[in-house]
Order: sequence, then structure tokens, then C-alpha cells
Amino acid sequence: MTQAAKNAIVLLSGGLDSMVAAGLAKEAGFTLNALTVDYSQRHRREIGAAARIAAELQVLRHIILPLNLREFGGSALTSDLAVPKEGNGSGIPTTYVPARNLIFLSLALGWAEALGACDLFIGVNALDYSGYPDCRPEFIASFEESARLATKAGATGEAFRIHAPLQHWGKARIAMEAKRLGLNAGMSWSCYDPTAVGLACGLCDSCRLRQNGFREAGIADPIVYAAHASEP
Amino acid sequence: MTQAAKNAIVLLSGGLDSMVAAGLAKEAGFTLNALTVDYSQRHRREIGAAARIAAELQVLRHIILPLNLREFGGSALTSDLAVPKEGNGSGIPTTYVPARNLIFLSLALGWAEALGACDLFIGVNALDYSGYPDCRPEFIASFEESARLATKAGATGEAFRIHAPLQHWGKARIAMEAKRLGLNAGMSWSCYDPTAVGLACGLCDSCRLRQNGFREAGIADPIVYAAHASEP
Repeated sequence: MTQAAKNAIVLLSGGLDSMVAAGLAKEAGFTLNALTVDYSQRHRREIGAAARIAAELQVLRHIILPLNLREFGGSALTSDLAVPKEGNGSGIPTTYVPARNLIFLSLALGWAEALGACDLFIGVNALDYSGYPDCRPEFIASFEESARLATKAGATGEAFRIHAPLQHWGKARIAMEAKRLGLNAGMSWSCYDPTAVGLACGLCDSCRLRQNGFREAGIADPIVYAAHASEP
Repeated sequence: MTQAAKNAIVLLSGGLDSMVAAGLAKEAGFTLNALTVDYSQRHRREIGAAARIAAELQVLRHIILPLNLREFGGSALTSDLAVPKEGNGSGIPTTYVPARNLIFLSLALGWAEALGACDLFIGVNALDYSGYPDCRPEFIASFEESARLATKAGATGEAFRIHAPLQHWGKARIAMEAKRLGLNAGMSWSCYDPTAVGLACGLCDSCRLRQNGFREAGIADPIVYAAHASEP
């Protein structure tokens, strides 16, 4: 089997990380099938970003799947709870969405099995998001086992591979990879809480991580920010 | 903590199995929060059945969550593929929906964590559905581990319990439990492929399992069938 003919499902949020993960999947020779979950998140701009990235990467199919996680709430991204702007604290932030990556990977697995694909790509990175439990390598490994046991394909001997190529990278390395892959970082959207006129706020955890990453990498970030945090 | 105050999430499809699982959860003293996924399944009648059962069981909240799994296809229940009517063969049937129970449990987990609940109930039974990989005890055990690793609650020491009280029962025992619990089996809906006038077909795998179960239990099934399979 030639590598070029193999389908992969890539979880594409529209953020920088998933853009780079998708770019790496394409570079590795996979045919891309992109899944974006429209989970009624506060930062809906990222869905448009995902569509731009999917077009740029010439994915075979892009599914934008509505799933109203506001029904459950429990996160600053899916409720009226305020997005913190004071910088990255310790512990798990209020922007954590209960079981989000497990839900997204399960959906990606459903599509993969229906399509006969065995490879899933997700842009988690444990360094930046050490606060998010579902970005840790042990979670990804455990999901691979659940995927094997949950599926017809797994029961008949097929193994699903969950690729998390950014797992051990920080944001600076990810910014450099975007550049190396020739992907315009301006296509991606990271801010959790855009301003009324649609600028990135510059102060939420996600903006701070991104600004610091580009600064550290010595690369200009094409995104326009409404503010810049004084403390990196 | 009194048992009566504890919330549980019950996956309620509207079928006989999940009705009995929910009834057992209520009998055990849990406050019920019912989740029904409207996954654009062929047998949409079961969603109305779920609403009736939720009302009868006086659940605290019933969420009917739209999730269009037809986008992925890959199953007779979510595509134009015909539902088999020739009786239960060996192997995994075409009515298997890729990763369905993993997707549903992940969603239930998201709600559970947002709500501060640790107990999830699912009506899988490995005897009747030995063809469905995601009904096996080893899958349920693996999911418990993924749930622990995927969540903030798990990362901070909370354990999620996936209750599958019907796991080792056949359909006759389940029919008897429905009776014992005082739940009218006529509220539930099992048929995969209702007739144009809304009767249960009587010939799909799900109808055959149900008919055989009630027959074996010596209990009358209130459901009206368009046909009865000559061979049990």
C-alpha cells in the first residue's frame, strides 16, 4: 500500500496547533479528512479559520459538525463564565471543557471507522496545556486502547493510531513548524474571547501562549491583537 | 453523603434496555439526568419513546442532543443501507454504528463532569449483542480508565463509575426486570426499521431479540408488530 493513498482524519479546530498537526499529516503523505466540531464555543471565529485552513490544505472532505456542548456547560468557553485574563495560573483553568478531547476523538474515530481509515491526528501539546488533562500522553495512549475495544475494526484486528505530533512541543516550536511547512499562521485563530470588533483580545491564556511562542521563536505573528500582556 | 442526593447520567435511547438500566439507577437511589442522542438514526421513533420514559421516571433533566452521525455513515442505521431482516447472523451486523457507544459515553461523561456527577448508566448487554464490540465488558472497563485520564475530575482524584447493570443479562431477564420495576415495556421502542404506518417490523435483529426475550420470559410484549419471525 502506498502511503499517499491512506486517509487520515484530522481534528481541525482552526487554532495554530491543529493547523500544524494537519500540515504534518499532509507532509507525511496522508489524504486529509478534516473534522471541526462546532460546539457552540465562545470563540466561533475559529470555525471560519478551520474552513480556510482546510481549503489551503486541500482536504478531501471537511465536516463541520454541530454539537451543542452549551447544553452541558461547565466551562468558560461554553457558558457565561468569564474567560480569565490575568495570565496563566496553576491548576486546570476554567476554559477547560469537560471531556472535550475525548468527545472529539470519539467522533473522529466514528468517521475513521466508517471511512476505513486508521490514522487520527490531533494537535494537543502537553507542554503548553499542562493544565488540560486531556492533552497528556497517557490520555492519548488510553484512548488508543478504548478505540481498539470500541470498534468493529478493532475487534477484527485493525489498530487505530492516534498521532499527536505536537505532543512534546512548546508554542515557539509550533510557530517555527508552521513557517517551515509554509502555512500562514494568520489563517489560524487562537483567542478565546475576541473583542466586539473581532480582534484577538491578547490577554486570555490562549493569546498569551501564542504571543509568547511567536516572540520566543522570533517570528512575526500576523494576528492583530487588541492588547499585549505586559508580562510574558 | 446520602445516596439519594447523588446525580447520575443515564444514557436513554428509548429502547427496552436503557429503560431498565434507568429504572435500576432510580431504584438504587440516584437522581436521574437522562441523555438521549438524536443521531439522525433511521428509527427516530425511539426518541419519542425516550421522552416518555424520562417523564415516567421523573428525571431531573432530559437532554435530547442532536448529533448528525449521517455525516459519517457506515451503518444501516445512519445511511441508505438496508436493515437486515433474515435473522441474527454471526459476526458484527451492518446495524453496528461506528464507535457509537464510545461517542455516547464520552458525551455523558462531559455532562457528568460539568454537573459534578460520577455515575454513568448504560444499558449495554453483552449476551444479546455479542456482535457489537462496544457492548463488551472490556470496552466498558477501558472507557472508565480513559474517563479518569480525560477529565479534570479524574486528574484530581475523582473516579467515574460506568454502570452497565444489564451487562450479563439476556433479553428475557431484561423483560422480567422491566416488569419487576413496574415499567410498562410499551413505552420503549426497539425496532430498527418501523413500517410506513409506524409499526415495529418484527423482522429486524432488534425486533427478533425482543420478541424472543418476551416469549422466553412468558411476558406479553405490548408492542404491536407488523410481522412475527417464524424461526425464533
